[in-house]
Amino acid sequence: MSFAAVDIIRTKRDKGVLSDAQIDWVVAAYTRGEVADEQMSALAMAILLNGMTPGEIARWTAAMIASGERLDLSRVGRPTVDKHSTGGVGDKITLPLTPLVAACGAAVPQLSGRGLGHTGGTLDKLEAIPGFGTRLSNEEFAEQLRTVGAAICAAGDGLAPADRKLYALRDVTGTVEAIPLIASSIMSKKIAEGTSALVLDVKFGAGAFMREVADARELARTMVELGKAHGVTTVALLTDMEWPLGRAVGHSVEVEESLEVLAGGGPPDVVALTLALAREMLDAVGLGDADPQEAIASGRAMDSWRALVRAQGGDPDARLPVANEVETITASADGFVSGLDAYAIGVAAWRLGAGRARKEDPVSASAGIILHRRPGDPVHAGDVLMELRAEDAAKLPAALEVARGAVGLAEVPPAKRPLILDRIS
Amino acid sequence: MSFAAVDIIRTKRDKGVLSDAQIDWVVAAYTRGEVADEQMSALAMAILLNGMTPGEIARWTAAMIASGERLDLSRVGRPTVDKHSTGGVGDKITLPLTPLVAACGAAVPQLSGRGLGHTGGTLDKLEAIPGFGTRLSNEEFAEQLRTVGAAICAAGDGLAPADRKLYALRDVTGTVEAIPLIASSIMSKKIAEGTSALVLDVKFGAGAFMREVADARELARTMVELGKAHGVTTVALLTDMEWPLGRAVGHSVEVEESLEVLAGGGPPDVVALTLALAREMLDAVGLGDADPQEAIASGRAMDSWRALVRAQGGDPDARLPVANEVETITASADGFVSGLDAYAIGVAAWRLGAGRARKEDPVSASAGIILHRRPGDPVHAGDVLMELRAEDAAKLPAALEVARGAVGLAEVPPAKRPLILDRIS
Repeated sequence: MSFAAVDIIRTKRDKGVLSDAQIDWVVAAYTRGEVADEQMSALAMAILLNGMTPGEIARWTAAMIASGERLDLSRVGRPTVDKHSTGGVGDKITLPLTPLVAACGAAVPQLSGRGLGHTGGTLDKLEAIPGFGTRLSNEEFAEQLRTVGAAICAAGDGLAPADRKLYALRDVTGTVEAIPLIASSIMSKKIAEGTSALVLDVKFGAGAFMREVADARELARTMVELGKAHGVTTVALLTDMEWPLGRAVGHSVEVEESLEVLAGGGPPDVVALTLALAREMLDAVGLGDADPQEAIASGRAMDSWRALVRAQGGDPDARLPVANEVETITASADGFVSGLDAYAIGVAAWRLGAGRARKEDPVSASAGIILHRRPGDPVHAGDVLMELRAEDAAKLPAALEVARGAVGLAEVPPAKRPLILDRIS
Repeated sequence: MSFAAVDIIRTKRDKGVLSDAQIDWVVAAYTRGEVADEQMSALAMAILLNGMTPGEIARWTAAMIASGERLDLSRVGRPTVDKHSTGGVGDKITLPLTPLVAACGAAVPQLSGRGLGHTGGTLDKLEAIPGFGTRLSNEEFAEQLRTVGAAICAAGDGLAPADRKLYALRDVTGTVEAIPLIASSIMSKKIAEGTSALVLDVKFGAGAFMREVADARELARTMVELGKAHGVTTVALLTDMEWPLGRAVGHSVEVEESLEVLAGGGPPDVVALTLALAREMLDAVGLGDADPQEAIASGRAMDSWRALVRAQGGDPDARLPVANEVETITASADGFVSGLDAYAIGVAAWRLGAGRARKEDPVSASAGIILHRRPGDPVHAGDVLMELRAEDAAKLPAALEVARGAVGLAEVPPAKRPLILDRIS
């Protein structure tokens, strides 16, 4: 228990600016366990409510990076570029994007996470593939980037340990939604992983953590500045997360949809966002001449996917788990789907077994939702709007209840929503 | 670790009003250990920064009382009335006041605390008296009130355990200075102790926890309302704590000054505040005809003191400990003492050994400061302004440094400061 920590908490509580020395000390001392959890959570709440200056956020991020190791990917032999999404519903973009960009000549060092709340996690999705392993040593990670050009795994314990500890604390203390803490958490991990460039997919809308565009924009600007300050070329796209991405929400169902994209098909919004992010990533490392559409059409992107899955112990030809318990939701009248609340769909998938209540809980690989109709689609009374799948039939009623409330029907189609609202660099 | 707690934290974080059920649950679950310290500290910070409605404060206080037992003092056989001070420097008023009010016919159930930060604690002061014990069982407490009419001891573990736990947490998380939390902490203990009436001495100024009059007034109003809502007749005086009270700051030196007051002498400000609070306490229980000045002049107040000390195992005739290491501060020029920063004097006494850095540290009974000149007093160059006493000579230099900075000298005397600014009932 530290009394120096009390002075730091008071400074931020009283709307003061923390000094570099205070930030360096409190992050390091928290990592060492000298600042107690109850002190850090009070400080996190004060930061959430009173904010931080750009200078404080930059120093806080630097202190989190300095709490652990920073990987050196120079021996990979290709330009490195990563993508990070702030999280959404049906957001499987990392799965087709990573092998696609690798197929175009870059190396993609993807350190990913697990599902949080109503959003799914990339690692959970990949683990639906029999045999796929998400723990790589630093050496295995760098070597796979050199040979395959892509790796998707969990961050090692040595990267930004301050962030790992603080992230778990924020989750249980109502202090997740602070832009300085979100930005420094994401960027400390991405900078420590050693990527030379980074493209951020910052989402807004019902299914995003930032519901308001203005908040998403502020978060994007903050992260772009942090990346640049640490020598990482960083670009952000502001993208819509009012409705789910694509038609599949869950783990194995999202892997299947990703394979459709790599095979040249897939839902138009997933394809469009994958290509847009791929172009940004390739541009960021001087590979703007590469043609991701051609990489898909030629089958090179799918080859890259298969190499990635095999390198991490998975079988690209294995059958993915399928849930046997199925319920459908049908349209009550003729008209158009006018809305599809991404947050409610995320919660419904979570209730089906795709999400976890506690960090240590397992997820169901096969639970999920297939959206048969999307906003703008015409419907007739009795048409299937969506299909809910679970391993355990007992999980269906609660999921059905919330999924039914997610759909809007109207006599006219909704206004179109642009998928990519803005680009910040 | 509780996820219901996260919803409650978020509600207050987002400036919402907590429901009665939320407050009842979070206070009870925290007492049971189901809400973690890091969750309660985040909630405390949100309360500090976003405030609470009067309804929330009332319910929070009721939940803290309900976390433990409430004493029944009906068998004491006299009207019960207590006093609470929000804490200051040189504030020994409880020592002469308690036996004085008992000598006038009321019973005074004084559950007191220890020093906190730069302020001294009543229990620490009484323990300067050889043999004095500050731990009484509920039965001993009630019985002593019946026979002696006064008892000054530590609150038992059964009273407001939620407050005990929360108070220790606030101390290390920078969340002490929240009016809803201060008010509910004080009032839950006082209401649980079973007193029928309560007089509050709410201090403002350099040496008080509330530096601003407006904050002290809000705290006073909040506490008066809480007392009334629980059937306890409650009155508050707003009193000045810009300068220390009296001439003695420490433990044995404050006991000595208290004995001077009971003997009919003592510094005018200590005498005036003791009498004013005694009259309020007696009025509050229908004993307005009693004459505290006469109780002092007749020696009945001193008899009551001696009975109180003996009942708690102390020897009223024992010599109090005296510190042998002494340093003085002298005036550098002719003029008047224009100011005497109570906070700095409190810190100096703390550094001499009168205060503790951690809850479990012992205090030095004999360490302290004697103020030879007070604001308004004329001085000549070379006059002794104050005397610093310590058991350990090594503690003198750091105390001297801060004490020197506490004194202001000027060519004219300062404006008078009224001791009692207002009365709130």
